[in-house]
Amino acid sequence: MTPDEMARACADKMWAEDNASQGLGMRIEAVGPGSARLAMEVAERMVNGLGVCHGGFIFTLADSAMAFASNSYNERALAQMGAVTFLRPGRLGETLIADAQERARAGRTGVYDVRVSGSDGSVVAEFRGHTRGIGQKFFEGEAIGGNRA
Amino acid sequence: MTPDEMARACADKMWAEDNASQGLGMRIEAVGPGSARLAMEVAERMVNGLGVCHGGFIFTLADSAMAFASNSYNERALAQMGAVTFLRPGRLGETLIADAQERARAGRTGVYDVRVSGSDGSVVAEFRGHTRGIGQKFFEGEAIGGNRA
Amino acid sequence: MTPDEMARACADKMWAEDNASQGLGMRIEAVGPGSARLAMEVAERMVNGLGVCHGGFIFTLADSAMAFASNSYNERALAQMGAVTFLRPGRLGETLIADAQERARAGRTGVYDVRVSGSDGSVVAEFRGHTRGIGQKFFEGEAIGGNRA
Amino acid sequence: MTPDEMARACADKMWAEDNASQGLGMRIEAVGPGSARLAMEVAERMVNGLGVCHGGFIFTLADSAMAFASNSYNERALAQMGAVTFLRPGRLGETLIADAQERARAGRTGVYDVRVSGSDGSVVAEFRGHTRGIGQKFFEGEAIGGNRA
Repeated sequence: MTPDEMARACADKMWAEDNASQGLGMRIEAVGPGSARLAMEVAERMVNGLGVCHGGFIFTLADSAMAFASNSYNERALAQMGAVTFLRPGRLGETLIADAQERARAGRTGVYDVRVSGSDGSVVAEFRGHTRGIGQKFFEGEAIGGNRA
Repeated sequence: MTPDEMARACADKMWAEDNASQGLGMRIEAVGPGSARLAMEVAERMVNGLGVCHGGFIFTLADSAMAFASNSYNERALAQMGAVTFLRPGRLGETLIADAQERARAGRTGVYDVRVSGSDGSVVAEFRGHTRGIGQKFFEGEAIGGNRA
Repeated sequence: MTPDEMARACADKMWAEDNASQGLGMRIEAVGPGSARLAMEVAERMVNGLGVCHGGFIFTLADSAMAFASNSYNERALAQMGAVTFLRPGRLGETLIADAQERARAGRTGVYDVRVSGSDGSVVAEFRGHTRGIGQKFFEGEAIGGNRA
Repeated sequence: MTPDEMARACADKMWAEDNASQGLGMRIEAVGPGSARLAMEVAERMVNGLGVCHGGFIFTLADSAMAFASNSYNERALAQMGAVTFLRPGRLGETLIADAQERARAGRTGVYDVRVSGSDGSVVAEFRGHTRGIGQKFFEGEAIGGNRA
């Protein structure tokens, strides 16, 4: 398997067991070694009476994107920390895109940045999170090193 | 109105327009000036195949608790940033409690800490967030000062 | 040794090798299991032309306080992350106090809060950090458990 | 003045009043609209007995880089928050490089990322911070918009 095929295979395995991301209507638009792009439409149940998306769903989308990006090397990793900065509200009906990119890895710790953008391309939120590998594999064979420091 | 009555009145007004917190089954257990305690049960749709709660829902609970705590002074405030540290997984069926406490205020900025605990009282996550007042009131009359620095 | 004596002994050992905290004129005012209080005067070399302390020195004071708090159990721990919120400027000549308290521990990860206050008691900054135990001891004998989750 | 010339002029003015960055031996290697690169050598007074740089000085370098990047539009901005993740220790004698890039702007809030690298090019720390414009100019004339959202 190439690194891209491995990333896809890990994502498929995770997706199958991820009620939460599926239940919120997320879609995986792209996945690769250390990266993932997810989309989610802001639904009625995610907004307050003013049509503004609860920040928690924006975090959740970004957190899912980090999960797929960080689990792309055939080694399971868990989120240890996530910090999100809200730049503008998400609006009812718009499709949010979360682009996760690996920023650094050292030992078992990974650092990921996720930008969440709105339908007009403007930035809705910036997320940074840490993950920690837990020494379990998705498939038989070696974990893939990625750009581990 | 006393500060406690004001906090309750603001919370009632926010709650009525908050589809998101309601839709996730949250309950307000207590609210006061600069503080709030919310409860939420970890439901099927929040977990992955292993019965572990998606971190996004833990963040969402904490973010809602901060919202009620920071909107308790008759001045609307929005979340500007939220950072969560995950200590242990939330489990299917357990009731999570989020306790939000104001840590500091300076000008329009508030700093809040939220501890999320599980059914056994152990800490599931620690959240810290920033809010920013937007100069709008819930009710006629003065905003209440709280422990503004 | 009692936990308090152990905390003091670990602090003494760390302090002896800590050029950085010493060089900035810090003083340890108190130390216990999972807690520490440090003081530092804002000196000329720490300020800009307007007499305002560079935020980096405020972070450094808080980071040192976390270091002494987290290394109080006879197990060496390193800072993995630190986040600081600046509430008001530190002023030339004032003595800043950093109070570090352990917020949670789970496995080798610790979460610490540090409040930095000014001479008038008002809050200058709020810091939150993560530490990670590295499996080394200061002294022969067992590491002490603290309030590990 | 071009945006690049303005960024340089603002940096010169800030630098002249910045005892702190000067006193730590920092150098501005580059500055532009929304970006800055600073260098600093890890000196004796910054390390502990094991030759490892106190994390506070790494934060301070990153914070300074954010300051020059965020003050490049002829509008003064202050750091409101800074979060740093430590990836590997800084070593005595090595020159650290901090590269600050604007990640987003919305209203008066800016979000900046700063990567701190060591002499071998590997990542020492990743920093993310928020700044807030305070409505003061360095020079007569308009503030420059940058990529404000």
